[in-house]
Amino acid sequence: MIRLTGIPDIGKPRVVIVGGGFAGLKLARSLANADFQVVLIDKNNYHTFQPLLYQVATSGLNGASIAYPFRKFFEKQENFFFRLSEVEWVDAEQGVLTTTIGAIPYDYLVIATGAETNFFGDELMRKNAIALKSINDAVMLRNTILCNLENALQAQDEEQLNLLMDFVIVGGGPTGVELAGALSELRKHVFPKDYKELNIKQMDINLIQSGDQLLKSMSPEASEKSLRFLTDYGVKVWLNRRVKSYDGQTVTLDSGEELKAQTLIWTAGVVGSPIKGLKEESIIKSNRILVNEYNLVKGYDNIFAIGDVACMLTPEYPEGHPMVAQPALQQGKLLARNLLRILKGEKPDAFKYYDQGSMATIGRNHAVADLKMFNREFKTQGFLAWLIWMFIHLISIISFKNRLIVLLNWISGYFSYDKGIRLILGRKKD
Amino acid sequence: MIRLTGIPDIGKPRVVIVGGGFAGLKLARSLANADFQVVLIDKNNYHTFQPLLYQVATSGLNGASIAYPFRKFFEKQENFFFRLSEVEWVDAEQGVLTTTIGAIPYDYLVIATGAETNFFGDELMRKNAIALKSINDAVMLRNTILCNLENALQAQDEEQLNLLMDFVIVGGGPTGVELAGALSELRKHVFPKDYKELNIKQMDINLIQSGDQLLKSMSPEASEKSLRFLTDYGVKVWLNRRVKSYDGQTVTLDSGEELKAQTLIWTAGVVGSPIKGLKEESIIKSNRILVNEYNLVKGYDNIFAIGDVACMLTPEYPEGHPMVAQPALQQGKLLARNLLRILKGEKPDAFKYYDQGSMATIGRNHAVADLKMFNREFKTQGFLAWLIWMFIHLISIISFKNRLIVLLNWISGYFSYDKGIRLILGRKKD
Repeated sequence: MIRLTGIPDIGKPRVVIVGGGFAGLKLARSLANADFQVVLIDKNNYHTFQPLLYQVATSGLNGASIAYPFRKFFEKQENFFFRLSEVEWVDAEQGVLTTTIGAIPYDYLVIATGAETNFFGDELMRKNAIALKSINDAVMLRNTILCNLENALQAQDEEQLNLLMDFVIVGGGPTGVELAGALSELRKHVFPKDYKELNIKQMDINLIQSGDQLLKSMSPEASEKSLRFLTDYGVKVWLNRRVKSYDGQTVTLDSGEELKAQTLIWTAGVVGSPIKGLKEESIIKSNRILVNEYNLVKGYDNIFAIGDVACMLTPEYPEGHPMVAQPALQQGKLLARNLLRILKGEKPDAFKYYDQGSMATIGRNHAVADLKMFNREFKTQGFLAWLIWMFIHLISIISFKNRLIVLLNWISGYFSYDKGIRLILGRKKD
Repeated sequence: MIRLTGIPDIGKPRVVIVGGGFAGLKLARSLANADFQVVLIDKNNYHTFQPLLYQVATSGLNGASIAYPFRKFFEKQENFFFRLSEVEWVDAEQGVLTTTIGAIPYDYLVIATGAETNFFGDELMRKNAIALKSINDAVMLRNTILCNLENALQAQDEEQLNLLMDFVIVGGGPTGVELAGALSELRKHVFPKDYKELNIKQMDINLIQSGDQLLKSMSPEASEKSLRFLTDYGVKVWLNRRVKSYDGQTVTLDSGEELKAQTLIWTAGVVGSPIKGLKEESIIKSNRILVNEYNLVKGYDNIFAIGDVACMLTPEYPEGHPMVAQPALQQGKLLARNLLRILKGEKPDAFKYYDQGSMATIGRNHAVADLKMFNREFKTQGFLAWLIWMFIHLISIISFKNRLIVLLNWISGYFSYDKGIRLILGRKKD
């Protein structure tokens, strides 16, 4: 017998949303006044503002200021129910989702489980590398960076010193670039004061990119400038290199070169994170879920997928939309409207992605931005891009208080050249 | 052979301070321009403002806003050296401190290791109870409280529901009283909105106190009013009871009564936390280190103890000074001056404790305060005491930014009746 969870039946069609990232959160919120019961399942009790995780990892921000409790966010939404749990599998025939806390029947299921780090099957890499997908990951990375420097004070020889003080970041996308930039700021402005006994110039920051440019999803101008900014910061950028293996100490590149570092941060790709029980035909390579233009999962008539985990093949995006916040938010919003249309027997609207551009920050006063507004493109690099980056990220954070705290940290950090959350709190990488 | 740590010899007499709490931090800072090398050893890389730990545990504040990195605090102090490590033992004859990272020779050793929770040898209690001495403890307690409520939604019967929703706090000192007050605020203002599916009235908060009054170190007025405030908040205060046993579910009192709760918070006493290797005669019952009026440890001429771990027997304080922040700060400050006098061959000054009073907050608008200023006593309870409590705590926090963030959280919490850091982050009690 299946044990049901205690979610009450409120006599309305039930939409079960798995995952409270950008897509799931937007959908749940957009259904606020709809004639649905909205059930959100997540393994955390809070939403994470992922674009700023790298600042948590580099002591610029506190984890709590980029997290927001779901129950607080939906406090006044009467049709909303939350359960802290993880999905085990879906029984689509019965219309039941099995979770770690029991079974949840649904009328409509929405999979918004996002993406997970792609180690391309390299189990040794999975074990030895640090990924950056959650606040716990970010805090662990912060702890590891700080402990490395503390331990470097006790290093017995040059080899051990280098293992501790050198860092390797794999992947030249936004996360890799932003992390390399923030780490080099720590090296330039913070560590020389904190660790006067060490020669901080010995600290190497290596960024490894498989292609011949950084930020390859952005404009050539953005790619070029980000490379220049990082090189000016003293980051060693290795283009056209792939990591062949990493044993926890030695990084072997496909070019034959070797780097030594005890800490390797892996940002070189993500795959979808679908749930079990779906038909094989609905999962494509890269583990994303194949959906049609209404975000309906192939082979089902009441299971949807939105956000990073969903792959909608269109002429413009033959490999699916980019796995970033904007498509997720737009799909969440549209699906809410479409569910209402379906309820009324109307035909849903097809999804069309409005790309508003993308950006990445490299460090103080330096960012790159490719913006699209009113059908016009606008590219900028440097100080203006950096101001725009800060403004957009600040207004995107949930809650006035968190925005204030982030702003306060940024302002104080800007004028003091400091990153103040240098706390070794909780677990570090084993 | 003993492996030395890499702390350089700067040709000045070396003062090694173990522990960066109030006492150790004050001492290290007060030696800023002195002709000593100051070495601080701590198992954390940050100072913890312990008086506000209970607010971290009850989702009112973030851990980071009451923590401050040592290296940042001493950034400009040229004679300061920090090592993240734990003490193993002291070899007083050789003048060497052995730590987890190697041996550290000293000219003067100062033990400022503070206090630890006293479970009175009850190993079952140590295993099952939650203590509140560190930020990690506080975050774990917050996670546990929130998980209990999440799990209560899935409770199979009334017994399980009560185990999850009821809380037992042992100890009616400031920590127990403040925690009981903050928890009852969560119950009144936050949980009814977060957990509409639960009947929050079922949540019991029990406070167990061995004597016939709460806050027994304070005035009768403070004791009486704190009892009234807590009772008004719906806290069940059990006076004249001791806990006989706790198996993780059932709390058995010496009166024969039984309480059921999966979560028991133990605040019923502390003992000193001395280091190994000291002569037996220098450690007294309650594990504190016996010191003379100069904080010199009995039996040694270059080992001092300050703060909670030090026990100075005086006619006014026949059992030693209270284990709170004020004596620690004053002893740290005086010892800095005395070390300078010793260096000059002058006679040190004897310690005299200036008790400035004490206070405890019970909840919004409610605190009790016994203040001593200019040889006058001033007692107040209620709103004014609460304002004074906030002001004193706010100005005591290190750094302008942390003060601003705490103030921001307090103001936003006051007007919204909310405690916003309801994040289950990291580990909970197993």
